[in-house]
Amino acid sequence: MLSKNQIKLITLLKQKKYRVKHNLFVAEGIKTINELLHSDFELSHLYTTTLDFSASDVLTTLISEKELKKISFLKTPNTALALFKIPMPKKIDFSKLVVALDNVKDPGNLGTIIRLCDWFGLDNLICNLETVDCYNPKVIQATMGSIKRINITYTDLSELLNTRHETVFGTFMEGENVYKSNLPENGILVLGNESNGISEDISRTINKKISIPRFGNIKETESLNVANATAILLSEFKRRIIEK
Amino acid sequence: MLSKNQIKLITLLKQKKYRVKHNLFVAEGIKTINELLHSDFELSHLYTTTLDFSASDVLTTLISEKELKKISFLKTPNTALALFKIPMPKKIDFSKLVVALDNVKDPGNLGTIIRLCDWFGLDNLICNLETVDCYNPKVIQATMGSIKRINITYTDLSELLNTRHETVFGTFMEGENVYKSNLPENGILVLGNESNGISEDISRTINKKISIPRFGNIKETESLNVANATAILLSEFKRRIIEK
Repeated sequence: MLSKNQIKLITLLKQKKYRVKHNLFVAEGIKTINELLHSDFELSHLYTTTLDFSASDVLTTLISEKELKKISFLKTPNTALALFKIPMPKKIDFSKLVVALDNVKDPGNLGTIIRLCDWFGLDNLICNLETVDCYNPKVIQATMGSIKRINITYTDLSELLNTRHETVFGTFMEGENVYKSNLPENGILVLGNESNGISEDISRTINKKISIPRFGNIKETESLNVANATAILLSEFKRRIIEK
Repeated sequence: MLSKNQIKLITLLKQKKYRVKHNLFVAEGIKTINELLHSDFELSHLYTTTLDFSASDVLTTLISEKELKKISFLKTPNTALALFKIPMPKKIDFSKLVVALDNVKDPGNLGTIIRLCDWFGLDNLICNLETVDCYNPKVIQATMGSIKRINITYTDLSELLNTRHETVFGTFMEGENVYKSNLPENGILVLGNESNGISEDISRTINKKISIPRFGNIKETESLNVANATAILLSEFKRRIIEK
């Protein structure tokens, strides 16, 4: 049985300020929940219509499908919804490539970028304070559980970049062709906002401008979506390591 | 003023069978409509709240914002909605790289793949008959107008691939590392369904299996999203041309 207070709390967790206040976020779907149960993330509570999960009994409440529908953020709810504690970010390891996001606003894009970081073996992702919250339910959904392997830090990005000695890469129309650029094993790769690219403030901290060449010969072609640009750039950085 | 019949027709065009019946599709948003007005696409009718478009007066109806809201497929309608005629696909040119989709179901993914084909200078995209319709309003939205530069053909993909002599590439877990593969300037690159990859039927027509290596050392990492995989693979094919 779900109490009114539980329903209220879960509903509030749609909003960032309540996630911060309660230090909790919502995960849905068997795959995502199972991934997080087998990780350093700490379960706060599991609400489920089946007993297929290996979570402690004390933290599990069996609910009806009707109840799940009431608390789910999805149009077609899965079989469970879990609350996990928001972890403290760990110290960032700059000895490997790190991705930094400047005002990425779309939850689907952030989720996809987290998945890409995971695929390409990155450990760290830095987000400026205006980037969408990674504990937003839509982001959690899009990461498919891979968020557990990426250490995500929200910080004043411009301040942080000013203190670092690694090369800071950013994509600009006039940047050097990335296929011909010298790409080191470490460094910081900045990706900007969906509409406006990298902000002026952050631009000043970039010391290597790169670009993904456009092969179509018509100039009006739209720019690449930020998640696709991330995919191509991470592929380029990592390919060099294989080829060494 | 909008007539009841016009409203009815536009609403029906959400469904593929009525798009096929009337040979019309819906485009929304200033950018997309402007791109399509400056292309080979033939305007059937423009409904707009402003007179900022260079469309013929005969084909333009000035409507109120309230009327636009009634016909728009978007949550927050833009300033115009246009009906364009669905073009006849042209003959496919196999002298350049061609992407072929096998059961891609998500409109956002198809739209993104069309944008990627445009970015990387491809002219042709082939879709099997189960792939989501490229004139679906969500696809049109996601292509940002780039659909006008890509010749899209829906066909029995397995039958077509069986008659071709170009190398047919497909991504498989056990495929050859794409970074080390020999990639020609032409060929057919097949991408499969979001959940199930390339179908058995189409698998038999693949004569070169490739893979994008996973750099994270944990096996449970989710597979790449099909649009991101397309981005990485097109980048690899095209990079080779630059480096020649």
